[in-house]
Parts: sequence; C-alpha cells; structure tokens
Amino acid sequence: MRNFLSEKVTSLKPSGIRKFFDIVSEMKDAISLGVGEPDFDTPWHIRDEGIYALEKGRTFYTSNAGLKDLRKEISNYLKRTQNLDYNADNEILVTVGGSEAIDIGLRAVINPGDEVIIPQPSYVSYEPCAILADAKPVIINLKAENEFRLKPAELLDAITEKTKVLILPYPNNPTGAIMERGDLEKIADIVKEKDILVMSDEIYSALTYKDKHISIASLNGMKERTILINGFSKAYAMTGWRLGYACAPKEIISQMTKIHQFAIMCAPTTSQYAAISALKNGDSDVEQMRKSYNMRRRFLMNAFKEMELECFEPYGAFYVFPCIKEFNMTSEEFATKLLMEEKVAVVPGTAFGECGEGYLRISYAYSIDNLKEALGRIKKFIQNLRSV
Amino acid sequence: MRNFLSEKVTSLKPSGIRKFFDIVSEMKDAISLGVGEPDFDTPWHIRDEGIYALEKGRTFYTSNAGLKDLRKEISNYLKRTQNLDYNADNEILVTVGGSEAIDIGLRAVINPGDEVIIPQPSYVSYEPCAILADAKPVIINLKAENEFRLKPAELLDAITEKTKVLILPYPNNPTGAIMERGDLEKIADIVKEKDILVMSDEIYSALTYKDKHISIASLNGMKERTILINGFSKAYAMTGWRLGYACAPKEIISQMTKIHQFAIMCAPTTSQYAAISALKNGDSDVEQMRKSYNMRRRFLMNAFKEMELECFEPYGAFYVFPCIKEFNMTSEEFATKLLMEEKVAVVPGTAFGECGEGYLRISYAYSIDNLKEALGRIKKFIQNLRSV
Repeated sequence: MRNFLSEKVTSLKPSGIRKFFDIVSEMKDAISLGVGEPDFDTPWHIRDEGIYALEKGRTFYTSNAGLKDLRKEISNYLKRTQNLDYNADNEILVTVGGSEAIDIGLRAVINPGDEVIIPQPSYVSYEPCAILADAKPVIINLKAENEFRLKPAELLDAITEKTKVLILPYPNNPTGAIMERGDLEKIADIVKEKDILVMSDEIYSALTYKDKHISIASLNGMKERTILINGFSKAYAMTGWRLGYACAPKEIISQMTKIHQFAIMCAPTTSQYAAISALKNGDSDVEQMRKSYNMRRRFLMNAFKEMELECFEPYGAFYVFPCIKEFNMTSEEFATKLLMEEKVAVVPGTAFGECGEGYLRISYAYSIDNLKEALGRIKKFIQNLRSV
Repeated sequence: MRNFLSEKVTSLKPSGIRKFFDIVSEMKDAISLGVGEPDFDTPWHIRDEGIYALEKGRTFYTSNAGLKDLRKEISNYLKRTQNLDYNADNEILVTVGGSEAIDIGLRAVINPGDEVIIPQPSYVSYEPCAILADAKPVIINLKAENEFRLKPAELLDAITEKTKVLILPYPNNPTGAIMERGDLEKIADIVKEKDILVMSDEIYSALTYKDKHISIASLNGMKERTILINGFSKAYAMTGWRLGYACAPKEIISQMTKIHQFAIMCAPTTSQYAAISALKNGDSDVEQMRKSYNMRRRFLMNAFKEMELECFEPYGAFYVFPCIKEFNMTSEEFATKLLMEEKVAVVPGTAFGECGEGYLRISYAYSIDNLKEALGRIKKFIQNLRSV
C-alpha cells in the first residue's frame, strides 16, 4: 500500500506545548504551570444561559455566520471597548474559537507563495496555519530588550514584494508583552504604506494590567486592512465552549464564511447562546478574574526578583517569560530537569519559536497556593543549579 | 488598496442550499422542506448530560483528540454496529461535526494535483473542500436508473494515475440512495486493486429503511484504506452541538490530529460529555426517530405515486429525490416557481452537482402535518403545470 499522507502536513511538527503535560498527568505530586487556560470555571450566569438553551431545545444549526443576536452583541462590545464600528450583518463571523478564525482567515487571503510575517515568540498555530494555507512564513525574532514588542525597523526588514499579511499577536502568548498606542501607530503607518493586511489576534485583549488594550483596527485607516480575531476562551474562562469570532471588511468575511460554511457549518449553538450572556452581563466577572490574575502576576514578579531571575515585566495575558540563559542549558533541558527533579511543569520558550531559546513560559492561570508551592520548588531548583 | 483575497477561495461558489431559505424566512405561510436537519430536539437524556457537565463546571479544553471516554464509546459503537475494531488511543479523532472531518481528512492526505473522485449528486462540501486542499475533483455523474448507487464501471472510468481518494457518500444526501453489501464489495475490490483511499461519509448510517447500513471499512482489507466519517448530528438530532468523528489508520489520524490541534484545538467539551450519553443510552431514541422518518418516507412515496411524479424509492437518510423532467423546466426554475406560487421551499437537485438537473431534494425531516400541507400544494402546482 502506498503512502497516502500529505507531504506538507507530514512536515509540520506537532505543538511542543502538550508533551510535558502527558508526563505531568502520570506524575504524582507534580504541579503544572504550563497550560494556557484560565483556572476559573465559566461564570455561572453564562453556564446558566447555556443550560437554559439546552432545556429549551435550542439544539439546531444556527446560520453559518452565527446567531444574529450574538453578532450584534459582538458589534456592541467592540464599539464600547474600542470605538470600532463593525456591521453585524456582514463584517462579523462567529467561529470555533480563535483557532478556526486564524485558520480560515489565512485560507481566505493567501495565494500560494504569499508571505506571512509572524513575530515570535508567539502562539503555536500561526506558522503551521500559514504553511497549511500555502503561505511562506517569514519570522521576526522579537527581542527581550524591546520587551518583545514589534519594532518598526524589524517589520520593515521583514517586508518584501511578496508580503501579504502581518500577524500581530498582542497581548502576547507566551511573553505577556503588549503593544501600546505609540507602538501600534508606527506599525500601522508601515502597514498602510506597504499595502499589507494585519491579522490581529486579540484573544487576550481583556487581560491587560497597565492601560486598556488598543486594537490596531481602531487606528486611522486600519479597519479596512485588519482581520481582528477575538473570542470568549480567555476573557470569560470559556475554553471548552469553542467560541471565537473574526471581524474584517465584508469582502474578507464573505470569503471566510464560505470556507466556514463548508468546513465547519456553524459554531456550537449552546455556546453561542451562552456567549450572548457573557457579552451582556459578564463585565464584572472579567474584571474580577483580571484582578486575580494581576495579583498572581505581581506575586510571580516579586518572587523572581527575590530569586534574582531575570524577567521583563509583562502587562498582558497570563504568562511570564523569565530568562534562564545564566544556567547554560537549553530551555528544553531546563524544563525537563525541573520537571524530573522538582515536579514542576513549565513550557520551554522554544515551543513558541526558535528565538524563545533561553526562556520559559510560566502561566499564572493557577491558584495562588499552587503558584507558591511551585515557586518554592523553582527557587530550590535554581539555587541548586547556581551552587554547582 | 490591493485585492487581498485568495483566488482559489474566491472561485468557489457558496452552497446553493441556503439561498431559498433566506426567502422562506421572510415569507408568510411558507413551508420549507429544504433544510437537511432533523426536526426533533436532541433527546432529553443527552441534553441532561450536557446540562450536568455545565453544572459541574466541565468548561475546559479536552485533549486534542477528544475525551478518552468518548473515543472508547465510539470504538464500542463501531464494534457493535459494524464489527469494526478501532483503537480509541490512536485511530479515532473527535471533530467539529462531520464537516470538519471531511475538511481535515482531505487536507491530511492531498498533495497538490492529486485527484479526488466525487460521485454526485452528493453533499455540497466535498467538492469545495477538495479544491481548498489543492486536489483536482473528478466528478462521477450517478444515474437515476442505478438508483444513484456507484457502479464499478463508473468508478473504473474515473480512476487515473493521479487518483488518491474516492469519496463514498452513502446513505446519500440528497438522493437517499444506499449501497448494499454486494455494491460495496465490487467497489472495494477496485479500490484495493488501484491502491486508492476511501473517505466514507456515513453520517446518515443510523437512518436506513431496508437492511442495516454496512460500512465499507468493515469489508476485508478495507479498514487500512478508509477514513470513516460519522457524527451525532443526524442520528441523535444533535446538529447544533457540532460533534462528529473520523476513524482511520493511526498514521492518518495522527496527521489529521495535527491539523485539528492547530486549526480547532478540540471539539466542544459540553457536546463531548453529552455524546457519551448518546452512545451509551441513545439506541432507543434513534430507533424511535428512524421509525418516524420511515413513516414519513412512505407517506411521501405514496403521495408521489398518486400524483404520478417519478421517484425512485430511497432507503436512507431523510430525503427523496423526485424527477421533474416532464415539466421542461430546470430544477432551479421549478423550485423558484413552486416557492413563489405555492410557498413551498425545496432544493434544486443542481445544488448537489450538475447531474442533479431535473430533480428536487425534498427533506422529510418535517412533521407529518407539514408534509401533508406541502404535498397538497405540490400536487396542485404540478396539476396546474400539466394542464397548461
């Protein structure tokens, strides 16, 4: 029998995040600071709306683009948080998490050979989704000294005649980096000048700890060249509901909807009803969770300071990205040794791009008790390393 | 600003099914026999399990491949219905409906230019998903005189050096056709002889009205060259839950899981818990719905006989596919006129391939009262046409 597999797909490496967690799940007393997922249950009123939808028998397909009422609430949400005007009729598509939006967003705009600029370290899906869409990924290695923000010179260096899309992954997973208005304005100028498109992944937009998040789509002349991606997983602790959305000019949403119609049909109906409640009545829940994350973030930053572990202060998402270069080990070696010796799981920075070498992603979407215990173990671990 | 759209995606026509339903939804007193969706609510014990999962706060990601317990139940289900042995650890992937399984199944195996054989009339997603995966679709025009079954000679004619996949869409949407063991054996022999892969879409497998459905994967030597696709939408009236699955050799499932991991992450968690209950305790619900569909099917066939409308007897799914060639109109003209004059919506056969010209898809997933009223209107409509 011949080999039936796609060469392109076979060449992709699976995500480097999950490997450690298969070990953790078998290991007694292990603590994981690894998964990129809120530790909170979905707020009750949101679950209650899902329950109500099931009780009422709302178990049918919705329209391909998603419930009209949900798209209206998304439109309202972007108006009140970003002063953005998206037409619920034709500029918003409800997707299966932000993940599907990334995949079909790229599929909707890429012709073979188009270049997609991906600043790294960043989420593990961008590069494979770009490759699957027949794009050529062009990687920008972000720098710790810039707090992992994207700098205009870096972008200019990466742009060629073939550039079609810049992926803008802020607030950033894994670094926790944000982009402030001044940073974004310089990027936007280049994007307009070079006539390229931005895919702005704003899934962590509700979780910032300095100023409020600003969407690049809200800057002058940018809405017409931005695919804004967001969703419910991180802000509302709704990962398992698999619900996200894309907002973009109607020509792009129309093509994305076509792929979505054939490849997915519609996002899960129960989740769509629940998400309406999230947007209508969830602001205080988000604020409560944000405060809790912030407390944990400051706890971690203090702990790193005490143990003299180098770490720039992250103002977004729920990750810190400490530097472990002083120990002369690869991130993978460090993470493996930490797991084996102290039973603490973190993710090597290299899971998010080669330039993540020398860093670790530590999630603080864990209880303060867990964080305290884990930090104690990490402290002991690095003291041992330093004493050798 | 330049045109940012993918040429490949732009070239795809949107599904021809929904067009009529936008009109219907605005039209007073209209009856739709058009949507391919059970009219039943999801059985209560399945919804109850979803509600319980939400109450318990099971709102987190599952593993990429889906809950282990669900994969075990899928494995058990295929064992008891088809005597098939699929390993829950590595030969089963839980997907967002059958739709995602079709999309990522093709993406996992296609190299550019590979040919995918698609017998038509058939479901609207196969051809666009094949094109999106860079395959060349090769259409087989199935024939009414064969009851729209796939014949060995038709398959042999379509196979070339470049053929990689045969899509086998039975029980069939839109024709209601089935393939019996003898039909499948002849196809299987050719598939093995020519060393090609089968994507067998068995989403309607629980809804047959003659013998029980037989999966081509269960025939000798076929499991290793079949991607079996099934799901919960049709059998358990769970369309809005967006839950399906693919079973295949582990090398293929592993590649599909990689795409799924990046583009989707995991299927909705609530739906996965509910589906366990569907497979464990849902047999009698399926049987009750099947009996109800069968009653409606026979009612329709009798009505067509009385009004002397040509229609082969379909033994699967919940569609009939009557011939309207005697009226010298295209399917589209007929359907439009029927909707405008008698306010009954059906789908032109051409929505499922050019060879659907001269036929209509009528769904009987509607209450018997609706069917009676609609059939009365259709009778009046064709009497008028004949009297001209």
